[in-house]
Amino acid sequence: MGMEKQKLVKTRFIAFVATSIDGRIAESGKSGTDWTSKEDWNFFQRLLKKFDAVVVGHNTFRVAKDHIKRRNAIVLTSKVHKIKTKGRAVFFNPEKSSLKRFLQSKNYKKVAILGGAKVYDFCLRNKMLDELYVTIEPYVFTAGVPMFSGVKFKKYKLLLQSTKKLNKSGTILLHYKNQ
Amino acid sequence: MGMEKQKLVKTRFIAFVATSIDGRIAESGKSGTDWTSKEDWNFFQRLLKKFDAVVVGHNTFRVAKDHIKRRNAIVLTSKVHKIKTKGRAVFFNPEKSSLKRFLQSKNYKKVAILGGAKVYDFCLRNKMLDELYVTIEPYVFTAGVPMFSGVKFKKYKLLLQSTKKLNKSGTILLHYKNQ
Repeated sequence: MGMEKQKLVKTRFIAFVATSIDGRIAESGKSGTDWTSKEDWNFFQRLLKKFDAVVVGHNTFRVAKDHIKRRNAIVLTSKVHKIKTKGRAVFFNPEKSSLKRFLQSKNYKKVAILGGAKVYDFCLRNKMLDELYVTIEPYVFTAGVPMFSGVKFKKYKLLLQSTKKLNKSGTILLHYKNQ
Repeated sequence: MGMEKQKLVKTRFIAFVATSIDGRIAESGKSGTDWTSKEDWNFFQRLLKKFDAVVVGHNTFRVAKDHIKRRNAIVLTSKVHKIKTKGRAVFFNPEKSSLKRFLQSKNYKKVAILGGAKVYDFCLRNKMLDELYVTIEPYVFTAGVPMFSGVKFKKYKLLLQSTKKLNKSGTILLHYKNQ
């Protein structure tokens, strides 16, 4: 009888971002998203039901805990050395073990990347961002947390799939695929 | 015979921005915009013909000098103490005199704000931004110069006028009005 290698699922990573026109996702790392439209919220909640798990940073988890705790959440943090479970949340240090392999071992097929800026950047850099939904609310913030917090400038080319107006106040939703 | 106050024109300020999906307008203050599409360039050049003058920062002027020198350009800079003219360019320190009044005295009715980040922010803060055209090229940069370089977070609400797909690569053009 031969050994058989376990066949792992291929996880699909889909990121969701709500942003101002000028690419800011929050005033600071500790502030919420009370400025986003209810139409974006509805779109997002409806889509989220189809996901096996969400990936968030520690700040995003704290700010959105009430919404996230009902879901399988992987909370990225440098504060733990090994995996720590608390309710349905798993605190995970991606510098210590492979996030991709962990999600595969859980058999997660669809994972939602919910930010913040460091998490988006981490996922993009590590080929864990297959699609990107960007909701642009009609504001300019001029300061605040930028959408991606990369250390180095790099040109990632994406493919626009669709654009959609979500409401009369001028919220628009863009959908991109990563090549 | 009574004294008559000179009637000044009301200048209309329209800003043009080319940005990545994540709200970055350049790698650094000294880099150009070789990543923008030719469709955006065509749109922009066609519209620019209808303007009386352009307002740019010193870096933007240096990078785009060849295109700007044929136009009436007001170059914002802290390096001059009084107005300095060089060809069709006027070097102007907006901390020393009122830019708005200067443009009115020139009888400019339509002025294009071409950036960079500090100039966009200055104009928005000083009520010199009536409309905003944002071209989103299908890239994520993760780092670089953000669209507006404000010191303080502030929520400016704009009104979406239209969205348009400029080409097959997924460049889109958003047009906003400031309230």
